[in-house]
Amino acid sequence: MSGTLYGVGLGPGDPGLITLKAARLIGGAAVIAYPALEDGDSLARAIAADLISDGVREIALHIPFVVDREPAQVAYDRGADEIAAALQMGDDVVMLCEGDPLFYGSFMYVHARLSGRFDVQVVPGVTSVTACAALAGLPLAARNEVLTVLPGTLPDDALRSRLEAAQSAAIMKVGRHLGRIKAVIEALGLMERAVYVERASLPNQRVMPLGEATDAPYFSMILLTRGNDPWL
Amino acid sequence: MSGTLYGVGLGPGDPGLITLKAARLIGGAAVIAYPALEDGDSLARAIAADLISDGVREIALHIPFVVDREPAQVAYDRGADEIAAALQMGDDVVMLCEGDPLFYGSFMYVHARLSGRFDVQVVPGVTSVTACAALAGLPLAARNEVLTVLPGTLPDDALRSRLEAAQSAAIMKVGRHLGRIKAVIEALGLMERAVYVERASLPNQRVMPLGEATDAPYFSMILLTRGNDPWL
Repeated sequence: MSGTLYGVGLGPGDPGLITLKAARLIGGAAVIAYPALEDGDSLARAIAADLISDGVREIALHIPFVVDREPAQVAYDRGADEIAAALQMGDDVVMLCEGDPLFYGSFMYVHARLSGRFDVQVVPGVTSVTACAALAGLPLAARNEVLTVLPGTLPDDALRSRLEAAQSAAIMKVGRHLGRIKAVIEALGLMERAVYVERASLPNQRVMPLGEATDAPYFSMILLTRGNDPWL
Repeated sequence: MSGTLYGVGLGPGDPGLITLKAARLIGGAAVIAYPALEDGDSLARAIAADLISDGVREIALHIPFVVDREPAQVAYDRGADEIAAALQMGDDVVMLCEGDPLFYGSFMYVHARLSGRFDVQVVPGVTSVTACAALAGLPLAARNEVLTVLPGTLPDDALRSRLEAAQSAAIMKVGRHLGRIKAVIEALGLMERAVYVERASLPNQRVMPLGEATDAPYFSMILLTRGNDPWL
């Protein structure tokens, strides 16, 4: 009997935003896996650290963080093979995922490689989108409203047309694209609705009007909402 | 000193998808509040039931579930007044919210009424969108992709234009609009990408190709994604 692969969402960073189910799975795991940078640092492992039992086997997937996709795909191949070997020996494997496993996460690359051959269960997690809204105190969408989630890495014209058509929007992965995105939002006349949030739920979280933001880490977001209308 | 109002996301229905932070707040609360139907049934209270201590004071907001918005707003006024009275006496109040408090949730109506006068903290929760993706095993968005979240209650032409422009889409609140939405998706030639999910994370959850779905409860969703491509 092969083991089960659990893809477990850890939420946006505060260990308190891990779900009860994820905490149980992590605490009971014989084998855990997680994405890591090439130097070994892993945000996913750091979020879950207090829940990981001593003596657990750890499979770190060292993912090159470069624009070219081929090296990362090779790393996912290798990681999936290592996880598959553990599953074949009958061990369950709990893969730790920042945020939600299937929402802009690296788990989907493992999932695509293994879901045909093994039992794969996904435990959803809190996304950075709702964590940013929580910190900013801004409703994302109500009633008949449409919410558009888009990455700030999109080219200017795609950003512009998506935002023009949007009601509420959450722009992820702002990082070094901050200046460019601000210019697009300014040109659309939307600056006064735009709120900048970084590292939501972590101790060094920050929230401010977009106009005041001057630089942005990778984990940053811009929310464009209709604000906090008492009769929404 | 006034108390703090906590708007606490409970996730999509499985009590295991409540976060550790939400569980701590609920377990330690002196006063809880929650939306309820006029007959007293409350999904939010049911999700959190095992975490609620004996002897806690409970404030049920009986929200009329009708198209006309005025009766609901009157109910929110009354509920917000009751919560405000508890906060003024120095008690913290934990308001239970299905899913995430600021994502198509009723908490935003309370938040809008009280956030100017009291300390209000929002604890984000797992949304039904990622819970449905987890059950279906379908990535919602990767890399440069855009995700559109829209309610199935939109009129046909708005649905059509939104879906035409979308990459991935999650259509919420399908319910009695199922036939109408299916017709729009069929006309757009998107049926083979469409997956129907109901009551994700609950014991009676179901997932199937949209073509096989014949009726839908209120808590149902249609996902339109690019599928589970191994090289996404």
